[in-house]
Amino acid sequence: MNYSKRPLGVYFLEVGAVMRPSAISYNRSHSSFSEILPSMVNWEVALRKGKWMHWTGITTALSKGAFDTLKAGLILAKQKGMIISADPTYRSGLWKYDQDPKEALTELLGYSSIFIGGINEINEVLGTAYGYSNEEFLEASKLLIEKFPSIEKVFDKIRTSLNSSWHKIRARMWNGSEFRETDDLDITHVVDRIGTGDAFAAGLIYGLQQFDDYKAMQFASAACALKHTYEGDVNLSTVKEVMGILEGNISGRFIR
Amino acid sequence: MNYSKRPLGVYFLEVGAVMRPSAISYNRSHSSFSEILPSMVNWEVALRKGKWMHWTGITTALSKGAFDTLKAGLILAKQKGMIISADPTYRSGLWKYDQDPKEALTELLGYSSIFIGGINEINEVLGTAYGYSNEEFLEASKLLIEKFPSIEKVFDKIRTSLNSSWHKIRARMWNGSEFRETDDLDITHVVDRIGTGDAFAAGLIYGLQQFDDYKAMQFASAACALKHTYEGDVNLSTVKEVMGILEGNISGRFIR
Amino acid sequence: MNYSKRPLGVYFLEVGAVMRPSAISYNRSHSSFSEILPSMVNWEVALRKGKWMHWTGITTALSKGAFDTLKAGLILAKQKGMIISADPTYRSGLWKYDQDPKEALTELLGYSSIFIGGINEINEVLGTAYGYSNEEFLEASKLLIEKFPSIEKVFDKIRTSLNSSWHKIRARMWNGSEFRETDDLDITHVVDRIGTGDAFAAGLIYGLQQFDDYKAMQFASAACALKHTYEGDVNLSTVKEVMGILEGNISGRFIR
Amino acid sequence: MNYSKRPLGVYFLEVGAVMRPSAISYNRSHSSFSEILPSMVNWEVALRKGKWMHWTGITTALSKGAFDTLKAGLILAKQKGMIISADPTYRSGLWKYDQDPKEALTELLGYSSIFIGGINEINEVLGTAYGYSNEEFLEASKLLIEKFPSIEKVFDKIRTSLNSSWHKIRARMWNGSEFRETDDLDITHVVDRIGTGDAFAAGLIYGLQQFDDYKAMQFASAACALKHTYEGDVNLSTVKEVMGILEGNISGRFIR
Amino acid sequence: MNYSKRPLGVYFLEVGAVMRPSAISYNRSHSSFSEILPSMVNWEVALRKGKWMHWTGITTALSKGAFDTLKAGLILAKQKGMIISADPTYRSGLWKYDQDPKEALTELLGYSSIFIGGINEINEVLGTAYGYSNEEFLEASKLLIEKFPSIEKVFDKIRTSLNSSWHKIRARMWNGSEFRETDDLDITHVVDRIGTGDAFAAGLIYGLQQFDDYKAMQFASAACALKHTYEGDVNLSTVKEVMGILEGNISGRFIR
Amino acid sequence: MNYSKRPLGVYFLEVGAVMRPSAISYNRSHSSFSEILPSMVNWEVALRKGKWMHWTGITTALSKGAFDTLKAGLILAKQKGMIISADPTYRSGLWKYDQDPKEALTELLGYSSIFIGGINEINEVLGTAYGYSNEEFLEASKLLIEKFPSIEKVFDKIRTSLNSSWHKIRARMWNGSEFRETDDLDITHVVDRIGTGDAFAAGLIYGLQQFDDYKAMQFASAACALKHTYEGDVNLSTVKEVMGILEGNISGRFIR
Repeated sequence: MNYSKRPLGVYFLEVGAVMRPSAISYNRSHSSFSEILPSMVNWEVALRKGKWMHWTGITTALSKGAFDTLKAGLILAKQKGMIISADPTYRSGLWKYDQDPKEALTELLGYSSIFIGGINEINEVLGTAYGYSNEEFLEASKLLIEKFPSIEKVFDKIRTSLNSSWHKIRARMWNGSEFRETDDLDITHVVDRIGTGDAFAAGLIYGLQQFDDYKAMQFASAACALKHTYEGDVNLSTVKEVMGILEGNISGRFIR
Repeated sequence: MNYSKRPLGVYFLEVGAVMRPSAISYNRSHSSFSEILPSMVNWEVALRKGKWMHWTGITTALSKGAFDTLKAGLILAKQKGMIISADPTYRSGLWKYDQDPKEALTELLGYSSIFIGGINEINEVLGTAYGYSNEEFLEASKLLIEKFPSIEKVFDKIRTSLNSSWHKIRARMWNGSEFRETDDLDITHVVDRIGTGDAFAAGLIYGLQQFDDYKAMQFASAACALKHTYEGDVNLSTVKEVMGILEGNISGRFIR
Repeated sequence: MNYSKRPLGVYFLEVGAVMRPSAISYNRSHSSFSEILPSMVNWEVALRKGKWMHWTGITTALSKGAFDTLKAGLILAKQKGMIISADPTYRSGLWKYDQDPKEALTELLGYSSIFIGGINEINEVLGTAYGYSNEEFLEASKLLIEKFPSIEKVFDKIRTSLNSSWHKIRARMWNGSEFRETDDLDITHVVDRIGTGDAFAAGLIYGLQQFDDYKAMQFASAACALKHTYEGDVNLSTVKEVMGILEGNISGRFIR
Repeated sequence: MNYSKRPLGVYFLEVGAVMRPSAISYNRSHSSFSEILPSMVNWEVALRKGKWMHWTGITTALSKGAFDTLKAGLILAKQKGMIISADPTYRSGLWKYDQDPKEALTELLGYSSIFIGGINEINEVLGTAYGYSNEEFLEASKLLIEKFPSIEKVFDKIRTSLNSSWHKIRARMWNGSEFRETDDLDITHVVDRIGTGDAFAAGLIYGLQQFDDYKAMQFASAACALKHTYEGDVNLSTVKEVMGILEGNISGRFIR
Repeated sequence: MNYSKRPLGVYFLEVGAVMRPSAISYNRSHSSFSEILPSMVNWEVALRKGKWMHWTGITTALSKGAFDTLKAGLILAKQKGMIISADPTYRSGLWKYDQDPKEALTELLGYSSIFIGGINEINEVLGTAYGYSNEEFLEASKLLIEKFPSIEKVFDKIRTSLNSSWHKIRARMWNGSEFRETDDLDITHVVDRIGTGDAFAAGLIYGLQQFDDYKAMQFASAACALKHTYEGDVNLSTVKEVMGILEGNISGRFIR
Repeated sequence: MNYSKRPLGVYFLEVGAVMRPSAISYNRSHSSFSEILPSMVNWEVALRKGKWMHWTGITTALSKGAFDTLKAGLILAKQKGMIISADPTYRSGLWKYDQDPKEALTELLGYSSIFIGGINEINEVLGTAYGYSNEEFLEASKLLIEKFPSIEKVFDKIRTSLNSSWHKIRARMWNGSEFRETDDLDITHVVDRIGTGDAFAAGLIYGLQQFDDYKAMQFASAACALKHTYEGDVNLSTVKEVMGILEGNISGRFIR
């Protein structure tokens, strides 16, 4: 572990309700993590037992050092034959240094085989303007795979918000041979939606190692939906609890 | 009152939300109550002014001493001409001693005239396999009364759970001459569902002493529904507040 | 500012849920405000820069001193050509002194050009018995304006309560030439409804100075709806946040 | 019990610390209690089983009705041979109606045999100017008994405040034949001092029925000191806990 | 790790203040731990890398199974040449099964070289009646070592309680060749005293592996004193923080 | 007011107790304030009505921009004949840019007439090594005034810490003609010591405009002591409350 004199990043969350949106303020631009450099991470040690490496676009946006550090890890992971998944979402307003976001993401996507993202993310890296329909998602995914031959599968989480307190979550995928879409999970009383994207990615990574692609996506959706029921940004649910949703126990039956 | 060196039972409740179920852990198997013996209760004194005695299956499941103590009370209550109601629900995994549950319940139901329970409870004591439809409920109730001639009326609370946070409650009855069913009460934002079964039973006991059977069942359903709006396992609502629901004030109009 | 040895008014609120109504107890009949006298307020100073004066029926109900003080202010505001709006709601059980409510309100409405109230308030001051339909609202509004020639516009906020936790808010108006009605805003998870009437009035006063009558009413409805999402009796939302609702962002999209 | 439309009195307490004094604001001048009238209390019923009646000066200060109601009770208590104790403390600024405080207290002290108060209270009712020394307390007590022949014993609680967080409590008495003083109880970490005077009086009333005068005063002092360790204005300690202090367990030894 | 259907033990603590003692209620007599059996613990694995084994008298008091399990571990620890320390405190009222406490402790002390306990514990195992002076402690320790030749050193923590909120902690030792005593550490504002005995033992075990006996005892006293400043039963302080006390920083100088 | 995209500084405080020190972590090195530039402040406007300007060493330590901005304000304040007071404390480890602290402070002290600081601060700016005695304080103050002829008076707050929970505060001064020292104020139960230095400075600035130097210093000490009794870093006490301490009411007498 590396220590720094810089503080951890902090965020302040105002939890919304009904038509009042949640609002978040980050204080992390000079956090210890943003000052990471390739020399600080011994990737050989870090990846010694690993089978899977996952990265997100936010890391690439933070600093040149973070980008370089991540890239070094991806190169080694690729050499070792690990599976690499990407959640390329970043917020364009937050790109912090003078590198072209599209270029940076393009470079790193070249190491990745699982793309976790939707129309916005595909349009961002391809410079296209696809719409949100299933047909356009399918077309966009195919073009993405054409342009990034390392990418094999695309998984897209879809949030439908009635308001801040009532969301629905479903997912769709193109895995190179099959388009599938899950049913909506109805989150009638949202507790906290922070961290739900990460819960989806984590669920997918677990699922793809256990199940076929469709069931993996169902597992990811259920994990994502469950995260909405916990305060805080961490999904506290166990595999058994997520599987309960897949097995149809969505009525919240009492556990004694 | 009897004191014991054993502690009170304790339970730990994790309140669920949406598709995340509530979970409860009991720490009561060696509680002071489970060590009760017939010699500890002076039923003559306890029942001196009583008109009604209510018992639950959980008491019979705890220990031989609890079963024997309860039975002694029921015998005296019967002699005194009190009304006896039974909520025979127990959880089969929780039966704590070497007596056959069905046999134990059968013995105690023989003293009871009001049966508060549904298909599961009837199937348990009759060894039958009825389904949940109104038709089967009616058939099951008639068979129950045939096998237990002391039983005059059967009241069944029906919970429909969209998820942990959204329930509906209604009730149905067979009182030997009439089948009735209430409308669903829609509990769109469940606060805490612990103690709602006891709230139904308590509401019924009050109602049957004030109203006809159908209105008593409506009162019980309203009391049960109101309990879902309080934190904790006690129904804090007054008779006046329950009656407000019966009179149609379910829109939560402000009280000034 | 005037100080008094009397305390501020206090209220105790029991927040309801689902079919359990909220209940409020006021402790304010001898509050410092109820002992106000015309001699305590220098209206010349207080209104020096004002363009708008708003009054509510509760003030008139508190005491003769409060009525007289308010009337003195309205006379001066009228002289200065200020716009005067009235929310004549009072609770008849709370009228605290020996003046006829109808007479008192009639006198003060004579200074007012904007009437913020619905069928109940119109019936109260006219002694009529109109029903709640749009047609009757229109008829009632016209009669109100006929009887009170100073009144130019009538704005009515309409609350539809499924239960204590789920309300809908819309508004309608007759401005002397046009009847309009907004769409319902669906408040699926009410946090606290205290102060929503004042939020509507405040929104309307702001809106009428910025927009046409219909958009002002939309602004007022959105402000009122947003207030339901805050704990406490104050609407904490900014103009920008209210405008977000008008612009259709009612899905509670996350603000980063 | 009598109900009133008036609210209960309320107080707001800012708990002090070290050199910052606690501050209290009362909102009770129009509380339901202040409007009590002799016709509301059936003293025959209220005192049926009573042996002791205790009154405080605050009641006499609230209103003529409260004074008259109290007086009616004292007359009956005296007739029935009950013991009557008086804590005549009132705050002169709080006297609420046009009766002379000294006169009012003088009248009621004529029914009382136990005087719970110190130099300030004696000076108030006698119009004297005694100082705080034991010698002057003794002289003052003797004069009090001379002027009020019904009074037999005088008990005085003495608070020594290092600051808001650190008090000492002791008591002294003149019972007509003997002067005694307890040791100081050192309250090194005051939790909340509200209600400590009432805890002393309550302890004394209990003690005088169980013990000799000196031990009763010790019991009262210990009860008073213990009250300083609870939040809120009620002394939650049991007789056994107070006796623990008398038996010398002031070191807070752990109870397992 | 072994799992059981029995719950963890629970305790309820009422935190005292000043002369009001803390009170604790345990609910652990049927906890999962009390049902431990030698067959459940693989001591070979558990002690594989261990250098030190510490036991407490409470374990021996819980059940025959707990005693037997502990004894099996001590035998192996002795064979492996590990250091064994004993904190033989148990509460006589809590001995839960039909074995003589003195006999049981005597057997286990035969494996131990470090005795963490004072006059009460020595008197308990020797059947003696020594007083609390340093002279008697020294004599008692020598006799203890004579009777239990495996014991080499005796460490005694001494608590002086002014009241529940103000304690002093010091320690004394006889290590077979030297008697030493530390200065009192003055805990003027106790936060929570639960777990301070364990903090002393833990500090001593760490200290004896790092320092000479006297400095180890100073370290243990400082760790024990620091525990009084944390809520909860765990000492959260780091070695660096404990060393700060030893180096004389007891004035709570601000850390920036 | 100037707005920035940078966040406000944040600090995390672990409140100590007894021998456990408080610890504070700052997250402010890239706060909006640290990026202030002279061009952002219109000092003409800011100082229009001002009579007194106070600065602290922490501002000078943050950044060149902060130093330059402060200097520009001091120059104007000097021109306008305002009184300038300095609290030159900074923490050497926190100096954030490449300017010599001593040099920077020396430059700004040249504009200041009131020096609020003690031996450490004087030694820092003079490069001397005075001790803490009154004699050395006097000598040091005289040398400071000799080297900085603009300085007329030196005020030093002295904290004596028994531990984290028990402090004493007094102050001393040399005003060019007189050395005085206040008595210790005994803060037996510290609530929160953050912001006590600022409370002293604020109290002094107020006091010097109302009283003679000695009484001003007493006022400052009392304000500083009172701050220790509030949670948070702001002194909430009023002038009247501070004066209460000066008038000898340090026993925390109850305010009714």
